[in-house]
Amino acid sequence: MTLQDALLFANEAFYQAFSARDADALIELWDDQEECMCVHPGWNALFGVDAIIHSFESIFSGPAPPQIICHVANSTIMDGSGIVVCYEEIGAQVLVATNVFKQRGSKWLLVLHHAGPAQFLPKQTASEDDPRRAN
Amino acid sequence: MTLQDALLFANEAFYQAFSARDADALIELWDDQEECMCVHPGWNALFGVDAIIHSFESIFSGPAPPQIICHVANSTIMDGSGIVVCYEEIGAQVLVATNVFKQRGSKWLLVLHHAGPAQFLPKQTASEDDPRRAN
Repeated sequence: MTLQDALLFANEAFYQAFSARDADALIELWDDQEECMCVHPGWNALFGVDAIIHSFESIFSGPAPPQIICHVANSTIMDGSGIVVCYEEIGAQVLVATNVFKQRGSKWLLVLHHAGPAQFLPKQTASEDDPRRAN
Repeated sequence: MTLQDALLFANEAFYQAFSARDADALIELWDDQEECMCVHPGWNALFGVDAIIHSFESIFSGPAPPQIICHVANSTIMDGSGIVVCYEEIGAQVLVATNVFKQRGSKWLLVLHHAGPAQFLPKQTASEDDPRRAN
């Protein structure tokens, strides 16, 4: 598995844990050695893994816990940091998310998640021929 | 100037160029050696410095070009990458932004900007005593 495949795999694992409403799985995906940051759509920023996991637990236990599907993930890697920009389909709503990961050995751990409204769900990544295309 | 001060300085330079509607200054702040990404509030993601600068030129030439003030910048540095999460005051609107920078020598260059709606303008960063507090 290439480094970029591993990055997109980590990104996908985040959305699988989110869809499964699995806070225990989510905790494992965040880098508790870094000052992690998270911005849910329309929320203010949260800092630290504890606050972030607590926010996901609140979302999971809410009246309408979201089913979320990740689409069209573009990624870039810089010196042990990986950035993924992807789209989140939540029912009829489309969000765009930035997820930043830190490389720890062969794993990528989340350091930042920021999701906000998007215009529409695109069909493909920046380049049609881009091998990093997730879907 | 510490590395973190330089990072916050680069973040502030972005908002000064934005407020001054200075596309030429903005170009200098982006890292054209990386695959840069930009998400304006409610827009889809843009890729590449050319598309990003063009989008700012459109915003600057629009009927209501925004006056933007950056507040409460939290930052973290990982192996040559710097992440800043800050608030943007645009008239009565409050946005939260993630800005990711790449270290190039003594400079920090923008690689990603993602802005979306926030709940309210906070008075301070994650920690009151945090020396990284911008305001």
